Amino acid sequence: MTQLYERVALIGLGLIAGSMALAMRRAGLVGEVVGTARSAETRAVATEIGLCDRICESAAEAAAGADLVVLCVPVGAMGAVAEEIAPHLAPGATVSDVGSVKRAVIAAVAPHIPEGVHFLPAHPLAGTEHSGPRSGFAELFDNRFCLLTPLPGTPGAVIGRYTALWQGMGANVESMDADHHDLVLAVTSHTPHLIAYTMVGVADHLRRVTESEVVKYSAAGFRDFTRIAASDPTMWRDVFLHNRDATLDILGRFTEELFVLQRAIRMGDGEMLHEYFTRTRAIRRGIIEAGQDTDAPDFGRAKTRG
Amino acid sequence: MTQLYERVALIGLGLIAGSMALAMRRAGLVGEVVGTARSAETRAVATEIGLCDRICESAAEAAAGADLVVLCVPVGAMGAVAEEIAPHLAPGATVSDVGSVKRAVIAAVAPHIPEGVHFLPAHPLAGTEHSGPRSGFAELFDNRFCLLTPLPGTPGAVIGRYTALWQGMGANVESMDADHHDLVLAVTSHTPHLIAYTMVGVADHLRRVTESEVVKYSAAGFRDFTRIAASDPTMWRDVFLHNRDATLDILGRFTEELFVLQRAIRMGDGEMLHEYFTRTRAIRRGIIEAGQDTDAPDFGRAKTRG
Repeated sequence: MTQLYERVALIGLGLIAGSMALAMRRAGLVGEVVGTARSAETRAVATEIGLCDRICESAAEAAAGADLVVLCVPVGAMGAVAEEIAPHLAPGATVSDVGSVKRAVIAAVAPHIPEGVHFLPAHPLAGTEHSGPRSGFAELFDNRFCLLTPLPGTPGAVIGRYTALWQGMGANVESMDADHHDLVLAVTSHTPHLIAYTMVGVADHLRRVTESEVVKYSAAGFRDFTRIAASDPTMWRDVFLHNRDATLDILGRFTEELFVLQRAIRMGDGEMLHEYFTRTRAIRRGIIEAGQDTDAPDFGRAKTRG
Repeated sequence: MTQLYERVALIGLGLIAGSMALAMRRAGLVGEVVGTARSAETRAVATEIGLCDRICESAAEAAAGADLVVLCVPVGAMGAVAEEIAPHLAPGATVSDVGSVKRAVIAAVAPHIPEGVHFLPAHPLAGTEHSGPRSGFAELFDNRFCLLTPLPGTPGAVIGRYTALWQGMGANVESMDADHHDLVLAVTSHTPHLIAYTMVGVADHLRRVTESEVVKYSAAGFRDFTRIAASDPTMWRDVFLHNRDATLDILGRFTEELFVLQRAIRMGDGEMLHEYFTRTRAIRRGIIEAGQDTDAPDFGRAKTRG
């Protein structure tokens, strides 16, 4: 494959940046991958495992001379990083990010981007509950979506080149408006994460059910919540603080809905519950048909079926 | 291994009964497994796939002459089945069940059990989001817990023999009080399921985010909720109706907790959110250490890591 970029700078070296570095290498998409992280320990680990071609001491150093700079830091840190690298950006370079929130990132980053540099916000919908430079793997983006939320006036060639990079890393690329992105993600990701954190928190508080029992008997349901609630705390703090309006909107709807079901339980309305639970099965079917999950019986974490 | 029971009757042939039949056969634990189901179609499928040694037309017929009868029907149907089989139970037989709720099952079943027959309630903590006679597999109970909630006065030999059967099917067996069981399960299973159903319902209602977008972009978080919310509607309706008090208790705590986090988001209290999310990580660690889940990065559904 032709090289899409000569030098890619990854700012921040967690799960997403690490997986990008490995996925770009897998497909031979770029000339050189340079990386940097604020923490010296993270830089040392990245050097040790050979995550990038070169590890730089600062974001400014990494960004200098790169034709693509990708901000892979928590959403709340994007603005400061953009400000730091701005004077060092090469003319014609593309700056992107991988933040889970788009409107707030655009507001924080766009003002710092100099004339002649293109800011193209993006969000790969992929992740695991692990974090840090050792957590990345080349297959993370395979058959996942990467959503672009281009600003008006972004040249088609800039979008096309970055789209090709993500496709080369295995992803399906689509574009949408930043506000719409934030609402969709509030439904599919942000609110579910908050709910999972909450349920795990409830279990943690409950003194009549000791922690060891909750852990021991976690097989059905709760186990999946703890997996979600093991995700990176800093990333998720920033997501909620920066997608506040959409998350609060969806949370309000969730609470209303929960009260309706809670009332049905209290009143013994089995018909309503059965109808509700039957309807939710259909969405699962759709997700499997869309190739976003498998039909293997995962609750049992079973490898084989009889 | 010595045969533990000569004839086991499985009443109801869904995921749990099917997996029991296969697990008992795998380990050669019993002489004969007979099964029955209310639906002629289920009986036909079970016959076709050879799930049991013999399929009976009625619960009464299946129970007759069995030294172990296991009720594998939804919790709300247990009482009627117990009443039907009661006149046909062999003296000295053990009757058990696999219901996710124990206090209500005991209240419904125990009054029908004749003198000289032992009722030993049990709940294997295992399942998948699939249901029906084709969904069972022999490995379902491997390294999972089966909780017994014995009634006062149950002979130790009866408990010991049934414990050996579950251990032979791969499970770890523990005993506890029925009320405590219902509270523990309200935390680890029932409330998480209700919450997952609710979140999927919210997504279904939301018209600004079309269903196809929710499905397409479901990779992080929501996908796991849909898996939970694809579980058998009849089973779960009965669980909520029959573990009402404990579920409503935990739901109340959940809502309180959610409001605290929601307020932190509204007020921009990042420190509180970060601390909360850090604490919930520890419980996940405990579950992995207890062998109830793996540390593989499942959000990415990844088979390999870099």
